[in-house]
Amino acid sequence: MSYNTFGREFRFTTWGESHGPALGATVDGVPPGVKLDEAYIQQFMDRRRPGTSKHTTQRKEADAVRILSGVFEGLTTGTPIQLMIENTDQRSKDYGDIARAFRPGHADITYQMKYGHRDYRGGGRSSARETAARVAAGGVAQAVLAQLLPDLKITGYMVQMGALHLNREAFDAGAINDNPFFLPDATAVQDWSDYLDGIRKDQNSVGAAIEVLVQGCPAGLGAPVYAKLDTDLAAAMMSINAVKGVEIGEGMGAAAMTGTDNADEIRMGNQGPYFLSNHAGGILGGISSGQDIVVRFSIKPTSSITTPRRAINDKGEEIELITKGRHDPCVGIRAVPVAEAMAACVILDHLLMDRAQTGGVRGQIG
Amino acid sequence: MSYNTFGREFRFTTWGESHGPALGATVDGVPPGVKLDEAYIQQFMDRRRPGTSKHTTQRKEADAVRILSGVFEGLTTGTPIQLMIENTDQRSKDYGDIARAFRPGHADITYQMKYGHRDYRGGGRSSARETAARVAAGGVAQAVLAQLLPDLKITGYMVQMGALHLNREAFDAGAINDNPFFLPDATAVQDWSDYLDGIRKDQNSVGAAIEVLVQGCPAGLGAPVYAKLDTDLAAAMMSINAVKGVEIGEGMGAAAMTGTDNADEIRMGNQGPYFLSNHAGGILGGISSGQDIVVRFSIKPTSSITTPRRAINDKGEEIELITKGRHDPCVGIRAVPVAEAMAACVILDHLLMDRAQTGGVRGQIG
Amino acid sequence: MSYNTFGREFRFTTWGESHGPALGATVDGVPPGVKLDEAYIQQFMDRRRPGTSKHTTQRKEADAVRILSGVFEGLTTGTPIQLMIENTDQRSKDYGDIARAFRPGHADITYQMKYGHRDYRGGGRSSARETAARVAAGGVAQAVLAQLLPDLKITGYMVQMGALHLNREAFDAGAINDNPFFLPDATAVQDWSDYLDGIRKDQNSVGAAIEVLVQGCPAGLGAPVYAKLDTDLAAAMMSINAVKGVEIGEGMGAAAMTGTDNADEIRMGNQGPYFLSNHAGGILGGISSGQDIVVRFSIKPTSSITTPRRAINDKGEEIELITKGRHDPCVGIRAVPVAEAMAACVILDHLLMDRAQTGGVRGQIG
Amino acid sequence: MSYNTFGREFRFTTWGESHGPALGATVDGVPPGVKLDEAYIQQFMDRRRPGTSKHTTQRKEADAVRILSGVFEGLTTGTPIQLMIENTDQRSKDYGDIARAFRPGHADITYQMKYGHRDYRGGGRSSARETAARVAAGGVAQAVLAQLLPDLKITGYMVQMGALHLNREAFDAGAINDNPFFLPDATAVQDWSDYLDGIRKDQNSVGAAIEVLVQGCPAGLGAPVYAKLDTDLAAAMMSINAVKGVEIGEGMGAAAMTGTDNADEIRMGNQGPYFLSNHAGGILGGISSGQDIVVRFSIKPTSSITTPRRAINDKGEEIELITKGRHDPCVGIRAVPVAEAMAACVILDHLLMDRAQTGGVRGQIG
Repeated sequence: MSYNTFGREFRFTTWGESHGPALGATVDGVPPGVKLDEAYIQQFMDRRRPGTSKHTTQRKEADAVRILSGVFEGLTTGTPIQLMIENTDQRSKDYGDIARAFRPGHADITYQMKYGHRDYRGGGRSSARETAARVAAGGVAQAVLAQLLPDLKITGYMVQMGALHLNREAFDAGAINDNPFFLPDATAVQDWSDYLDGIRKDQNSVGAAIEVLVQGCPAGLGAPVYAKLDTDLAAAMMSINAVKGVEIGEGMGAAAMTGTDNADEIRMGNQGPYFLSNHAGGILGGISSGQDIVVRFSIKPTSSITTPRRAINDKGEEIELITKGRHDPCVGIRAVPVAEAMAACVILDHLLMDRAQTGGVRGQIG
Repeated sequence: MSYNTFGREFRFTTWGESHGPALGATVDGVPPGVKLDEAYIQQFMDRRRPGTSKHTTQRKEADAVRILSGVFEGLTTGTPIQLMIENTDQRSKDYGDIARAFRPGHADITYQMKYGHRDYRGGGRSSARETAARVAAGGVAQAVLAQLLPDLKITGYMVQMGALHLNREAFDAGAINDNPFFLPDATAVQDWSDYLDGIRKDQNSVGAAIEVLVQGCPAGLGAPVYAKLDTDLAAAMMSINAVKGVEIGEGMGAAAMTGTDNADEIRMGNQGPYFLSNHAGGILGGISSGQDIVVRFSIKPTSSITTPRRAINDKGEEIELITKGRHDPCVGIRAVPVAEAMAACVILDHLLMDRAQTGGVRGQIG
Repeated sequence: MSYNTFGREFRFTTWGESHGPALGATVDGVPPGVKLDEAYIQQFMDRRRPGTSKHTTQRKEADAVRILSGVFEGLTTGTPIQLMIENTDQRSKDYGDIARAFRPGHADITYQMKYGHRDYRGGGRSSARETAARVAAGGVAQAVLAQLLPDLKITGYMVQMGALHLNREAFDAGAINDNPFFLPDATAVQDWSDYLDGIRKDQNSVGAAIEVLVQGCPAGLGAPVYAKLDTDLAAAMMSINAVKGVEIGEGMGAAAMTGTDNADEIRMGNQGPYFLSNHAGGILGGISSGQDIVVRFSIKPTSSITTPRRAINDKGEEIELITKGRHDPCVGIRAVPVAEAMAACVILDHLLMDRAQTGGVRGQIG
Repeated sequence: MSYNTFGREFRFTTWGESHGPALGATVDGVPPGVKLDEAYIQQFMDRRRPGTSKHTTQRKEADAVRILSGVFEGLTTGTPIQLMIENTDQRSKDYGDIARAFRPGHADITYQMKYGHRDYRGGGRSSARETAARVAAGGVAQAVLAQLLPDLKITGYMVQMGALHLNREAFDAGAINDNPFFLPDATAVQDWSDYLDGIRKDQNSVGAAIEVLVQGCPAGLGAPVYAKLDTDLAAAMMSINAVKGVEIGEGMGAAAMTGTDNADEIRMGNQGPYFLSNHAGGILGGISSGQDIVVRFSIKPTSSITTPRRAINDKGEEIELITKGRHDPCVGIRAVPVAEAMAACVILDHLLMDRAQTGGVRGQIG
């Protein structure tokens, strides 16, 4: 199985190193006849790209995406779509003095152990730069979903940053795009900003937790037993750089619950069955129930901080490492659009998987 | 992609419904020349099977596994291994009066919506009975690992059951197999037993959290970007019935950490690099580092409790549901051997994936 | 990728050795709600099984197929279908004195070189006994196709046996099931029978060529560039034991043709486009055109003949080998139902692949 | 499964339309540490590219390949390699008046029926231009094989062109690169040239047959039952544009043979077993035997000839079609380097597949 390909029906393969000439995604399995152009994808790139606020990394990339194939006269042809993004602001010299050091908390050492030869500049293939390609692929997925599932809505937002937690009572989706934290609570933005300024000045970094809400997903998506919808959503998020935990619905909290609290009871309405609660997070037995799907994941803090750390280099010498250059005090912020992209890819993938096996026909109830 | 197949090199496809004549696993990609027989696999089946303590379900299955192919004169041939387990104690009458009801918290309704036709007896394919087949496949994986990675050790245990948490200070791996909870703390067993008796008498159930520790995994396993070792471990656990969250290392707790706390510093020893801590949980950039790998997941409480619940049936009528019959007050207990089996399958899969691409040769450091 | 799995959406994995207790197929990706029972599949098994005429092998197997999962109350559930066939007439002693010899023309030696350990009895996994499992899987495919493509008709027949060729002028599909050769020409049956009797008495064997005609296949099936319909049909036939060549339409003969002869001109009729010829064999650019699809393949002669042959054994000793026991003077005869089964699996697979990507909607012409 | 991806371990996904800005291949699963640069791949591109002789198409493309990722400091990193070739000489106006016509013998009509929307310029994705990307991927495979199997030698050549057949008695591999036909017989080149000149002047085209000889392939490659080496070689060749038949060893001729003629007897030598003949074409039971592997395939004549043909357009109107512009009177010539590339990819793929399952260890004989 491709190690750099995600998906089963709607598939994309990403390529490119952080400091190579370009990176991109080869997207295959795309339904034909879908309206798509570079500007449409670019909107998703812009939400992600570095340099959009003082809190994210200072590397300035335009992240302009080009479509090199698979689209003709504004519509997809069903053939592979090559998306390419050129790297313009690599600043290789930033990494000059740690060229062969293995940075603690980074994949440098494991890549060296596995491959024996790596492009170390900027972390090479292990860099989060790769997520730019995912977001581009996610843009294609969104274009298809806009046509096949017009009621679908995917919304990502931060729920935690270090010591700070989202106040769910104050949840306001309308605030998400108006602050640099994708925070659904305008009243907390100043506190979050002050907090992160403090972290940066301490030459430190913090972790984060992000939640993605999927509304309007039809029932019946998911393919038990080993392509369950929650399995694929979990894998999608876990594959993002620095992710350490994934939850669906109640998540790790389900361990403390009792059966009386946890089961979502069912009633019948004019439009069919409906549930009285949603502890399941919209997925039962690996198949969507029609309710809101809730996925949440944690991102560990950035390791490339500028306080000295004990490390080794590729000669096996013990060194003290200070990483200079541009780094995020909280990489979690930029993962929000990446998570939305992954969710879009998974939902579309499962829509196509479902129609392969069942033709999209649903079983009757009542 | 097979929806009922797990793995990329070492692959198994499970089949069988809870109340069908049999269930099993077709295991492919097995290295030849490995010592294997039914008794070896049976030991793993026995750890899992129902009726082994008063706290697990009262369905009495021998779970005797038969090897129908792929093994000759006690050694694997490299051809597919068919493992079959006959169902002997279905008690279809237990499910008689809920035959067409959709039990809250179960996959009944989503299976009906997706497939339109389901084997409802005992939950059919959505039943945790399927995990018996996984454990059998895991037995094959363990046999291969015993030969290819003799230092590997996979240990699963409970860390939480409802309101009770493992006291990590008292951690004693030697206690795990001496109590019905796979609890690594002999001193807490009585409390856990009393607690669960209370839950059962209340006609209720509780969730659980399980941890799997993998020791002796070599560095270099895992295939970025979309077959990372942690991604596959997460997917493996998330695919188990009733799992709602998965964590690697610090897991969801990484969101609250700072960079100074989180990075595992590196030093050089006589036998190569070593780390001063293990917040990463043994995996960096999706590739194993040689340190202990720690995976943890939550299981939601059983829904099949005997207190009345509001539900509907397949005619669309609203009903009140009491499920009689045999049920687990805590399904999490039986998931421990299942989790170990999944971990074994993932590690072996990645060992073979790695040797496909790199021949198993590691890069030099120093 | 599974090495023992065929297909992409409609997939089956075969298992079982020639002299093991059983063999079978695990079929996954099956649409739900399709009428299916053992008797339906058994009709395809009966067309194939040994001992049905004096000209095929004398091993007497009932080839009774059992359905162990995936079907409930006479309809498929969309979950994996386990098909099992028990071996009852192995006659292991027939192979006693060649137990460790490598028979010329057989896979004995290559299996030993690759795997190092093999079940040598009856050829183990390399035996054509495996095709019984394919035919069972093909039966499931036929059941689905009967519902999804009721106009589809798959007909296999012999076109050559050693020195004898089908007289295409006398082609009569109605004759196929009335003679032991699946020959579409009743007038030639006696000649074929006499010829083959002569071959057997000479302790020799002959090759064969088989053609499969697929009528009523809708246009649009096939997924360029690497899952073209003709590619998958070729792979399907080439995977059958002893196949050495595969042709689509004009086949190898296309090398001698000119462009003026070869292109199929297009006209417009009341029901849409139609072609004035069919040199293409029903497939253009890897996609079906709606015309009859013609696939043809050759099978080499059986090697297990009873005249002495120079060989070696697994000690590396040179020996003279006479194979006793039951053998086919022409294995090609029994491959006809196998080829039909493979064609059914491929067509169904592509039907599902197509509906995944396009929803089955066709582009307009005129 | 990716519809535009070839391979299982060593995989490449091609992308790009004939008249798009570029085309290319995303190559994944590449072993790290292999010496590779653009010049190495370019040599294979140059053997294939149009305009290299008066007999091949007049479209002039430099086919300069760029490596955009996966290689660092001259060695592969084990990460995906993006190969890109820019299109520079599309001459879209050549296709102006057949923009919406469906050319007989081409995939225009089937693409329209399947996808509903196609890039018609130059045949879009169905054009043989796609094979340039295959050849680039084949170049990467060759670089890896040079390191892993230095004794391997892959040689492609023409064996038939229309009415002309290679005289095998005069076979001389040294002549292949010295004439525009890749013909291994210098004495016949003038006849072939005169013949093809005649075809072109008649505004016609001819088919061809090509053979690929693989020498030095180790025994044991191939993964029965559904990833047999011959199955994958057949699929590889059948996937090339305009291929209609594929043969291994004796091919279709095996149908006429008897068992006494066909089996390759086995003897024992100082270096292990050897065969007295090679009717099998180097593959037994789907696994390589160590002997020369012989694959042969036919290519149908070009349909884009300039004599008028009856066709229809996408409005459903009947038309007479004359295709102007640049066309090959024999596309088979340019398929020789493509076939070599495909063979390289298959052999490498199987080498990696084998080492995944067996670690590359061979079974002992004697």
